[in-house]
Amino acid sequence: MSDTFTETLHAGYAQTMTLKGKLLVDEQSPFQNVKFFDSERNGRVLVLDGNVQTTTRDHAAYSEMLTHLPIFEHGKVKSVLIVGGGDLAIAAEALKHKGVTRVVLAEIDPVVIEKSRELFADINKKAFKDKRMDIQVVDAFDYLARPETIGAFDLVIADRPDPIGPGAILFADDFYKRIRAALRPGGFAVFQTGVPFYQPEELTDTLKQLGRLFKAAGAYLTVVPTYIGGFMALTWVSADGAVLGDAKKAKKIEKAFATAGVKTDYYTPAIHQASFALPAWIAKLVPKKRK
Amino acid sequence: MSDTFTETLHAGYAQTMTLKGKLLVDEQSPFQNVKFFDSERNGRVLVLDGNVQTTTRDHAAYSEMLTHLPIFEHGKVKSVLIVGGGDLAIAAEALKHKGVTRVVLAEIDPVVIEKSRELFADINKKAFKDKRMDIQVVDAFDYLARPETIGAFDLVIADRPDPIGPGAILFADDFYKRIRAALRPGGFAVFQTGVPFYQPEELTDTLKQLGRLFKAAGAYLTVVPTYIGGFMALTWVSADGAVLGDAKKAKKIEKAFATAGVKTDYYTPAIHQASFALPAWIAKLVPKKRK
Repeated sequence: MSDTFTETLHAGYAQTMTLKGKLLVDEQSPFQNVKFFDSERNGRVLVLDGNVQTTTRDHAAYSEMLTHLPIFEHGKVKSVLIVGGGDLAIAAEALKHKGVTRVVLAEIDPVVIEKSRELFADINKKAFKDKRMDIQVVDAFDYLARPETIGAFDLVIADRPDPIGPGAILFADDFYKRIRAALRPGGFAVFQTGVPFYQPEELTDTLKQLGRLFKAAGAYLTVVPTYIGGFMALTWVSADGAVLGDAKKAKKIEKAFATAGVKTDYYTPAIHQASFALPAWIAKLVPKKRK
Repeated sequence: MSDTFTETLHAGYAQTMTLKGKLLVDEQSPFQNVKFFDSERNGRVLVLDGNVQTTTRDHAAYSEMLTHLPIFEHGKVKSVLIVGGGDLAIAAEALKHKGVTRVVLAEIDPVVIEKSRELFADINKKAFKDKRMDIQVVDAFDYLARPETIGAFDLVIADRPDPIGPGAILFADDFYKRIRAALRPGGFAVFQTGVPFYQPEELTDTLKQLGRLFKAAGAYLTVVPTYIGGFMALTWVSADGAVLGDAKKAKKIEKAFATAGVKTDYYTPAIHQASFALPAWIAKLVPKKRK
């Protein structure tokens, strides 16, 4: 019998992966339990406190949609802040863009970073060695209190966990206000906002909150098989009213992608546009008025 | 402890649902094991030979995308043939269209039909009582050999299982040829074609086969949470070269939907267009030349 790993993120529903071999890492960091293993069907897997965080087979659906989509639509992103992201997957995607000159990673857990460097080499492509990369082992909430973060970023990517445990602060008004202050004119922030099929209130509540705090906000979708429940909701904001998901920019985005030399596993310009179409049941979760 | 049901459709990966109460049905029909139960997170569930077939919570993502999408794009569908579909979900969706005058359901298993009438009343909306409905308890492959099926249908919907066991015949050249003969000019057939994340070859092989046998063929996507693996591939064909997924018809489809009075849980005209955008990794599974 092979070993198995079972995730019960949503009470009453579970996914079970069969391991290839034994656990590679099973360690209590100062912040959480960290597991790595190879699986029969999902490649190499990172699990934090029992929740699947990253797999080599499907991470692209997550990291590419939080990175390439806002970067191509913005058109001139130079500086990127990643909140969390210790697996270095999003950092590696951001660094694929030649125009990006600085990527700051604010990750609280040094164990995740250290183990990911080695065990997720296929994903991170040695991003940690890139000169443009600035890895800060710090609580992102505290990092954003530093004066030098004011107006410093064209794009903030919140690769945050669910709003439980140490990640709860990353859903507070104060967190969003600090991000708002960190954005350059025309800049965007994007957030992981749960799987609406099992966490419908996370999308509704987040959009209400973002609508109060930002001049523009909205949602788009990706599909990450091991984030069980089908669609994953991503949300976006701008401090100055800039809009993400503007269909009029479709041609420009197509052109930019064609010449950027950015290789992708999930993202395409057509998927970019398609990801803003919400199934009827998800559209109903979007609050009508956000003011 | 509550009872649980575990599906292991893809070796090395499983989903487990917690039951509410006991199994409602657990019966060996002449063709397969038939289970019904209520679950904590997924509503009422139909399981055939251990594989989740239909849940009240997410069936719309499947049945609406196989029904409303081709009906709205075609514009004049009168007669529909459903291959399988004993849960009556697709039949109920087709009957929402006032222009549809005849829906034939060719389902081999009378036990599935009989139990679904009662236990899926919320889904089937008493479709079985509609005068336009013609339920045939028959092997769809045999039904399509009847002379009266020649040129008889504007839309054929293959609500087929995976190509294993008794469903294998529904993936054979002869099955597709009979469907080709059953289509009226301008008509479409659509097929369930697996979850590419775990069954990539099913999409590639099916598209190769359809490309050989039909004048036009292609793929589109839906997301059904309990068909684990993220995206589910649906394929379409026409006998005379009519194309499904023609973006130039988007405005017409929007208008038709606005006035049709068809209530949906998943389908929207925007999702209609978006469903033809394939993530890069799925686009790679589509054979380059289909002749």
